[in-house]
Amino acid sequence: MKTEIIAVGTEILMGHIVNTNSQDIAQALLGIGLGTYYQQVIGDNPERMKEAFALAGSRSDIIIVSGGLGPTRDDITKQMLGEYLGQELVADQGQLDKIKDYFKTREGGITETDYFQALTFKEGETFFNEVGLACGSVYRKDLDNGQQQYFIVLPGPPFEMRHMLHHYLLPYLTKEIYQDHVIESLYVNFYRIGEAKVAEILDDLIVEQTNPTIAIYAQPRRVTVRITASYPTYNEAMAANQALAEQIIERLAPYFLGYGEHYSLEHYVVEQMKAANLRLSAAESLTGGLVMEALTEVPGSSEVLTGGFVTYQTESKTTLLGIDSSFIQEHSVVSEAVAKAMAEATLAKTGTDLSLALTGVAGPDSLDGRRAGTVFIALAVKDQAIQVKQLDIRHRPRGVVRDIAKSEALSMVKQWLDQNV
Amino acid sequence: MKTEIIAVGTEILMGHIVNTNSQDIAQALLGIGLGTYYQQVIGDNPERMKEAFALAGSRSDIIIVSGGLGPTRDDITKQMLGEYLGQELVADQGQLDKIKDYFKTREGGITETDYFQALTFKEGETFFNEVGLACGSVYRKDLDNGQQQYFIVLPGPPFEMRHMLHHYLLPYLTKEIYQDHVIESLYVNFYRIGEAKVAEILDDLIVEQTNPTIAIYAQPRRVTVRITASYPTYNEAMAANQALAEQIIERLAPYFLGYGEHYSLEHYVVEQMKAANLRLSAAESLTGGLVMEALTEVPGSSEVLTGGFVTYQTESKTTLLGIDSSFIQEHSVVSEAVAKAMAEATLAKTGTDLSLALTGVAGPDSLDGRRAGTVFIALAVKDQAIQVKQLDIRHRPRGVVRDIAKSEALSMVKQWLDQNV
Repeated sequence: MKTEIIAVGTEILMGHIVNTNSQDIAQALLGIGLGTYYQQVIGDNPERMKEAFALAGSRSDIIIVSGGLGPTRDDITKQMLGEYLGQELVADQGQLDKIKDYFKTREGGITETDYFQALTFKEGETFFNEVGLACGSVYRKDLDNGQQQYFIVLPGPPFEMRHMLHHYLLPYLTKEIYQDHVIESLYVNFYRIGEAKVAEILDDLIVEQTNPTIAIYAQPRRVTVRITASYPTYNEAMAANQALAEQIIERLAPYFLGYGEHYSLEHYVVEQMKAANLRLSAAESLTGGLVMEALTEVPGSSEVLTGGFVTYQTESKTTLLGIDSSFIQEHSVVSEAVAKAMAEATLAKTGTDLSLALTGVAGPDSLDGRRAGTVFIALAVKDQAIQVKQLDIRHRPRGVVRDIAKSEALSMVKQWLDQNV
Repeated sequence: MKTEIIAVGTEILMGHIVNTNSQDIAQALLGIGLGTYYQQVIGDNPERMKEAFALAGSRSDIIIVSGGLGPTRDDITKQMLGEYLGQELVADQGQLDKIKDYFKTREGGITETDYFQALTFKEGETFFNEVGLACGSVYRKDLDNGQQQYFIVLPGPPFEMRHMLHHYLLPYLTKEIYQDHVIESLYVNFYRIGEAKVAEILDDLIVEQTNPTIAIYAQPRRVTVRITASYPTYNEAMAANQALAEQIIERLAPYFLGYGEHYSLEHYVVEQMKAANLRLSAAESLTGGLVMEALTEVPGSSEVLTGGFVTYQTESKTTLLGIDSSFIQEHSVVSEAVAKAMAEATLAKTGTDLSLALTGVAGPDSLDGRRAGTVFIALAVKDQAIQVKQLDIRHRPRGVVRDIAKSEALSMVKQWLDQNV
């Protein structure tokens, strides 16, 4: 079946905001085996909206429109789609009650256009908006050739859209299209390998894919492979996914990171250290807290990351870590010796099992005679020799230098864990 | 003139990556007074590509296509556009030389499809790709009615696309459309006010806008107003922008943050503290280093942020800051008293002028009897009484709680600076 996604909103059309809705919808549809053939973006102009609906209606089977369901005069998506389809709109009682209830406690009271948010296709189905006020709606058109065509409206705010997409639209389409089949996905993450290389290694599997299907996503500093199967039962679908996942992991074994839709290097480090009952601290200069901040994004990190130091100005390496200022002057603040001293001092002061230290030049200017992109990372482990890694990251903006430094620091911890735990 | 943007690429169509190119192009075009009327996304299917070009050609004056200029067999944008326009493609000698030069030192050597990247419209103009291998191209069609229609191809990789957009396409269009006029923009940032409210307050100015034009962008934790004027000289354009900016700032005075395209609260704090020769330190618990990391993103922050502590585990508040564990137990680790003690200890240990301290519950679980979203922020200033702010952020994900806490902490510093410097 051909799917088409239409995003409505002048703010997307003019580039004020990026169109994450169309991406989220396309990604989710692919997860249930539906490929997107066309995407359109249009403003809130009535004529151009109807033109877009007619175009989509002439070429696609499933048409998903997001945006323009709100309470302002510009929000006319449902009305225009209704006009194009020749379908009457009525208020959905459940959504209407929610809207009335919401305005009970607000100053200013309810206006006529607030009620419009409860509109739904009279001959369609309503998607109740649990996290907002405007309901979604689907109209199924039974064509003369015995096929069906689906017109779906979803709210524009990304949080509301995603909630409705996952809780209402995907189950609806799955039931309509696959009847009693379930669709299940499994995510496998790889690291230190590019998306193109993964695609090349899995090429024959991708060409042959039918059920499960394979999708490859480049994410910041990792590649995620999504495997999606459709079977009568959950267990059958997951067994098929697992079998294919193992085949894929075998081919990409040196790059395997872990399972899960949001599984990053930070998750790996937290998970493995937690399992081994180890604790980590850090002293960060050029990264200014980025390594610790990234780890504390992972729920459960409080059992692993004790804390540490941000020693951004050179003198703070003396006042906070107790490193002699003459030692720093002798070796340069961006040096292997200072990185080692930082890691050693942090290990001693925090009493953790492992300590990371980072010193370097984020740029754009050079520092203390060191070129932008020069970074030293030290990993101190209780009763072991300190390791140091030097990076030379050229021609990258400040933020990228810091991000690469963070990833390399976590990679050092991962390597140590892989060899020692 | 009506502008249409077409993004080519299965990876965008299927949602593997978000469509930042269309956003960047639309935003840049608006900056030279050109509004986008339509956006399309299509895959690398020849028939659907030509269908999309024909549709755009039938309704728009400036058609900008990005993506599909690379060296693989799937990259057929130029060829398909050439076929649709009935225009011959030839190799651009400058780009060809760059491609040959690039492959001189590579293993494997050059293949036939690598040369395709140098293709350009024989009767058009080439946009040389300074940062990649595939050139862009523009074909100007002189219509029977005396008007012009422009067909433009740009590379897909965002870094290459943006470079060509700003260095070649915008100057080209500005010259074609405005002849000898210059287009200049001025950015004004506001904070603690929503985009909708800004639009409401500026409503009459927006309705009346001709030259300069006004665009409003919601950014994380701020709203940016872009003012764009077109005049024969730079000075006239900037004078017109400045006059309108002052009118706007007068209406929104309590929310004014500063001038600049990338000017955030972090910039404000770094800039003002630098000017006042003041230094800052921090002790962060729930934010895990986020406040310091955000400040160190600003170039020049090394003159302001000395450094500080990440005291994520409760015990690190004792080992790193020297706060009695019995004191923490008595008051709870998430409390006004502990936030104060953290800020005081940090001020003493770092010797800075100001110190921030944050303790709270990022969630999703509660901690020490405190609900997720409970945050205490303390600001200690040398020889002044400590201020504390309590936040109660409900029903928000972990990352959002941390981000709000960071902004509120920086706001406390801003308020102090506004009153004391």
